[in-house]
Amino acid sequence: MADATQSVIITAAQAKSLSALPFLQTFVPEAFFFTAGVLMLLIHAGFLAYEGGVSRSKNLLATMTKNLMTLATVGLTFYFFGWWIYNGFPFWPGTGPLLGPWTDVSKLSSAVSAGFSAVTASYPWSDSLSPTKGDEFTGVFWMVFALFAMTTASILSGACIERIKFGAYYLLSILLGSVMWVIAAAWGWNYFGWMTTLWGFHDFGCAVVVHCVSGWFTLGVLLNLGPRIGKYNANGTTNVIKPHNIALTMVGLMLIFVGFYFFLACCEVYLPGYTTIVNIYGSPTTLAMLAVNTTLALAAGLMGAYVSSKGDPFFTISGGLTGIITVASGMDLYQSSLIIVLAFAGAWIMPKTATFIEKTLRIDDSVGAFAVHGVSGTISGILPGIFAVGYIAQPGQAPINLMGQIGGTVICAILLGFIPGYASSWLLKKFNLLRVPPEVETAGLDIKELGVHAYPEDMPADAAVLPAE
Amino acid sequence: MADATQSVIITAAQAKSLSALPFLQTFVPEAFFFTAGVLMLLIHAGFLAYEGGVSRSKNLLATMTKNLMTLATVGLTFYFFGWWIYNGFPFWPGTGPLLGPWTDVSKLSSAVSAGFSAVTASYPWSDSLSPTKGDEFTGVFWMVFALFAMTTASILSGACIERIKFGAYYLLSILLGSVMWVIAAAWGWNYFGWMTTLWGFHDFGCAVVVHCVSGWFTLGVLLNLGPRIGKYNANGTTNVIKPHNIALTMVGLMLIFVGFYFFLACCEVYLPGYTTIVNIYGSPTTLAMLAVNTTLALAAGLMGAYVSSKGDPFFTISGGLTGIITVASGMDLYQSSLIIVLAFAGAWIMPKTATFIEKTLRIDDSVGAFAVHGVSGTISGILPGIFAVGYIAQPGQAPINLMGQIGGTVICAILLGFIPGYASSWLLKKFNLLRVPPEVETAGLDIKELGVHAYPEDMPADAAVLPAE
Amino acid sequence: MADATQSVIITAAQAKSLSALPFLQTFVPEAFFFTAGVLMLLIHAGFLAYEGGVSRSKNLLATMTKNLMTLATVGLTFYFFGWWIYNGFPFWPGTGPLLGPWTDVSKLSSAVSAGFSAVTASYPWSDSLSPTKGDEFTGVFWMVFALFAMTTASILSGACIERIKFGAYYLLSILLGSVMWVIAAAWGWNYFGWMTTLWGFHDFGCAVVVHCVSGWFTLGVLLNLGPRIGKYNANGTTNVIKPHNIALTMVGLMLIFVGFYFFLACCEVYLPGYTTIVNIYGSPTTLAMLAVNTTLALAAGLMGAYVSSKGDPFFTISGGLTGIITVASGMDLYQSSLIIVLAFAGAWIMPKTATFIEKTLRIDDSVGAFAVHGVSGTISGILPGIFAVGYIAQPGQAPINLMGQIGGTVICAILLGFIPGYASSWLLKKFNLLRVPPEVETAGLDIKELGVHAYPEDMPADAAVLPAE
Repeated sequence: MADATQSVIITAAQAKSLSALPFLQTFVPEAFFFTAGVLMLLIHAGFLAYEGGVSRSKNLLATMTKNLMTLATVGLTFYFFGWWIYNGFPFWPGTGPLLGPWTDVSKLSSAVSAGFSAVTASYPWSDSLSPTKGDEFTGVFWMVFALFAMTTASILSGACIERIKFGAYYLLSILLGSVMWVIAAAWGWNYFGWMTTLWGFHDFGCAVVVHCVSGWFTLGVLLNLGPRIGKYNANGTTNVIKPHNIALTMVGLMLIFVGFYFFLACCEVYLPGYTTIVNIYGSPTTLAMLAVNTTLALAAGLMGAYVSSKGDPFFTISGGLTGIITVASGMDLYQSSLIIVLAFAGAWIMPKTATFIEKTLRIDDSVGAFAVHGVSGTISGILPGIFAVGYIAQPGQAPINLMGQIGGTVICAILLGFIPGYASSWLLKKFNLLRVPPEVETAGLDIKELGVHAYPEDMPADAAVLPAE
Repeated sequence: MADATQSVIITAAQAKSLSALPFLQTFVPEAFFFTAGVLMLLIHAGFLAYEGGVSRSKNLLATMTKNLMTLATVGLTFYFFGWWIYNGFPFWPGTGPLLGPWTDVSKLSSAVSAGFSAVTASYPWSDSLSPTKGDEFTGVFWMVFALFAMTTASILSGACIERIKFGAYYLLSILLGSVMWVIAAAWGWNYFGWMTTLWGFHDFGCAVVVHCVSGWFTLGVLLNLGPRIGKYNANGTTNVIKPHNIALTMVGLMLIFVGFYFFLACCEVYLPGYTTIVNIYGSPTTLAMLAVNTTLALAAGLMGAYVSSKGDPFFTISGGLTGIITVASGMDLYQSSLIIVLAFAGAWIMPKTATFIEKTLRIDDSVGAFAVHGVSGTISGILPGIFAVGYIAQPGQAPINLMGQIGGTVICAILLGFIPGYASSWLLKKFNLLRVPPEVETAGLDIKELGVHAYPEDMPADAAVLPAE
Repeated sequence: MADATQSVIITAAQAKSLSALPFLQTFVPEAFFFTAGVLMLLIHAGFLAYEGGVSRSKNLLATMTKNLMTLATVGLTFYFFGWWIYNGFPFWPGTGPLLGPWTDVSKLSSAVSAGFSAVTASYPWSDSLSPTKGDEFTGVFWMVFALFAMTTASILSGACIERIKFGAYYLLSILLGSVMWVIAAAWGWNYFGWMTTLWGFHDFGCAVVVHCVSGWFTLGVLLNLGPRIGKYNANGTTNVIKPHNIALTMVGLMLIFVGFYFFLACCEVYLPGYTTIVNIYGSPTTLAMLAVNTTLALAAGLMGAYVSSKGDPFFTISGGLTGIITVASGMDLYQSSLIIVLAFAGAWIMPKTATFIEKTLRIDDSVGAFAVHGVSGTISGILPGIFAVGYIAQPGQAPINLMGQIGGTVICAILLGFIPGYASSWLLKKFNLLRVPPEVETAGLDIKELGVHAYPEDMPADAAVLPAE
């Protein structure tokens, strides 16, 4: 149809439309990523409900308050330094220096200097984040990343409920949410990331840089935090500590599902002048892919966990999440039929992994975060090395390969996840800052630390109306 | 302003913008329908909360698990064959053959062959659903329809709670969600649908093809399923089985309201190159219409049910839904003032219909699904035959007329709804697969079928922490 | 790059794309504001959950039913006259006459007649609101404003729970939601509003016209309504009436947070042909600003209230809202670092203000609405007069200045908020229509007014299944 040699005459009205076209091209992606980004907050709302349902009622408000304050601790620190880490770390130590205010741009290679403008835009004092001098995109993407960061920290939150000290959680949430996963993203989920350019590492939907990192970080913390009182018996047997309200947990996970689609949508990039949507590595993809593959992964994941757990409601609903995480790294490249198989399988093994961790390893992970996020995220990271070998995201970079996927995943899991999680919580434990005293844990954190009951009407009648103060 | 004979000169920058315009035209509708489609999941989240609130706590998790697994049963089967049904059935048996892999495209009339490309795009093995070879729209619309399908099956779910077997529900959800309503949509809610082209059938917002079909299907199932134990007394009187948590039900319905706007938005189509939004039949409409008429139908529906039920919270909130459903078939053609009158009236009679069904017909519909969806959907289907007579959606087709609306609605209600629902549940009953044994029902499905309590802390103290396993 | 003197040749395909460009320019803002507008409903869903959690369980359904019916009372009256008020009042009494069906357009000044087409489009019988004759925007913006109106009325709702009569609340919700705040918006949050053109009044995010107006209106109502039975002791001490389910309140507020971003997004305007997004006053802004500043205000607000209240969950979560409201008037002009300081400070004082109102002033505001919305909204209105002095939104209007901000805020607080709230509730009280009788209040509104229990299973066993009727 198009013939570049053919001249046509357009009307004056068409010419008038043209003058507003450049801003239309700006508004469309700005509005889409704003909308999708805000709707990721449903993940956070969902985690709050999910974890609240899993806790016992004596710890309900302490659990939810942790989720809530994650918005504050990670939101503010991601503004102060997290956003810079994402933009300053991609080249270092693989393909270039650490970039920051000290960098002399004239000494950078042309490849590295291409990434430098994003670095200067990432400082809190940058004009790019100014309401009146900023551009239309830096602020929107800052929000998207800040919400990724909050979500990442929330994965830790659920595993530690009912015994962690508030202060310890806040510190750990900052370390995970505004530092460790951000380095992982800079290295493996960034157009300039050295793990991708050197090793061909591919992690479309952040299964590794978000879920695997936070899962292994959480495991490290749990080893120092220890199980809840009453979880394990001296004779080697295990008690079940039941969620006080799985219904609340299920409503929460439905909200997480909704938000998860938008999380994945924010793993795609569309900007003015683009002639295709691209993934974070710059290779073409579509929202149509996301629509089909996310829905099928969710469906197959629910089915896998339902079958495997014989209909256990808690495992089933986590299976939906597990299904999506299992395929997230390579979902932009897998056929739909493969998605169904992988998501089913990933969710099928999850209840078994979780039970092994709980009963055999005797690690008390209150929500199964390591099984759902850590194990599935690790599997997800390896799978493109089997099912998408040879794909090249950007010209000049290494193709997807098994060693690159394993290498990138192991670095994220161990170096950026487990070790910082273990070390930081070990330190907190040394200074007795990690865990509430046994009497607080037994009585419940709500009444001891916050001075309130979640359900005061279930208390003896005189507790519902407090005496005068 | 525009003068086609006038030549203008554009700048080089404008010419550059132009080269990205075709993909912008693709991205805009892709992004809109992706966003609106995903937000329909809020309907599903809402139904889960809604039905969970209506059940007694002993059946809460069984109720919610059914909702959850509907995502899996319908999601997967809609991928395997539901999407093909929507695309393969529109002409048959009215205006052409059933289309499928066996079809010889060279023997089709030009009218039918216009619809054939959608058929080849609908097979699970189609390139159109491939992540790398697919187009930008097939996958998004697949998801939208899959979510329509899940919602449709959820309407059945609520009516049957507290006594249906899981396996029976899963089979029925597939039959309703991935087969029966899809045939209805192919016939009456499709650009090529024979009920529309031959009879002028008009069902803008799926009141008939979704709500009426599922309502009557549900009625058929309920006749075989029978009432819950303790619902009716031998002396002809009726007991009220109270929702255990109407507050949860109300939160759920608020989420359904949000999702319903997006469900209706997905009843509109906008594609690259379009110069107007159109309804599914190809005639012009707007989102502005939807904004006004949905809001007014919701408001008037709440008011109607509130007045009629003297402020009963459960009926009132269902009134909002009833108001929207009552006008949904013709809402793209009704004036706002008519919307208010019809939605009020439709919601006003709903509590009376529901009570008549419960007390006089002695049919135990746990959530009033037949009154809300079946009766209102039937009324909605007939109303355009009174208030929008003569409108022609596509050139060459029959105008909207009363007989066409009644005919289409009756076919959907009886042939595609009631008969399949009755017959399939009759068969399941014959093989004793439909209903749980009385002792399970009395003790509650949660503890008997799933082995868990929704609220373990309300159990005797030693139940909250299970002994070692 | 662009050179207006340079002639270029475009292809036939580009010319074809051009013909659909004008409607693309229409669809993009129509779709964005439709989506953002509908998602504001999450605020309403959130308020329903929030207030339900704060009430005692004996009043839970009465509380939620009020929220629900606000959709109906305000939705319908905003259609009948609220939308006209917004469009008819901007000039009067400052810069022109009250505009309505009686207006002779030929006698208007050119400045006033520029605003007249919006007036004729705002009548319920206007073609602009017709589904088939209407334009693509009037209906969408009607919905957006109707949802603003419902939200505004909901602020009153929470403060009055557990003792107000349904009818009184419905009347007050209409007065506040479809009249008083609408006048405030016409004067101070409208391109033509006289407070802005004459005084330079600036209220980007409706902190004054929504939150301050409704907060002061609520205060007026509370003075006549009086405290709940059992709130205050004769000896001057105060009892705490505990929320029955703060967890529900927290889930509700998370939904409010999500909706609040979209509320603020609807404070920005983008229309076909625009070359920038603008605020309601026509001066340039971005969604990127909103993304950064809303997220930081939320984070800093949570932190401020958490620190100030020593981790009280109820105050903390309200702190997020308080933080956003505190900066909302001038957030399009404040640097991010200023946002953090102001939001933190505003939220830090909120628990102290609320306690002062409760304990010293002995005003029983069940949800702290006056402290969160009234006080913060008032502060927010004044702050641009300190931190954004001299900014001119439209050519020819007064610059932002302290007296203009104080003047506009006081008019909104006292004239449009406190006085109508106090006077109308005083009148209702005179006729004994304001408050339920003491025996109803003591027994609970649910069982006495609605005839239902929120949680029937917590009642004696024979209440769960009612006897025959």
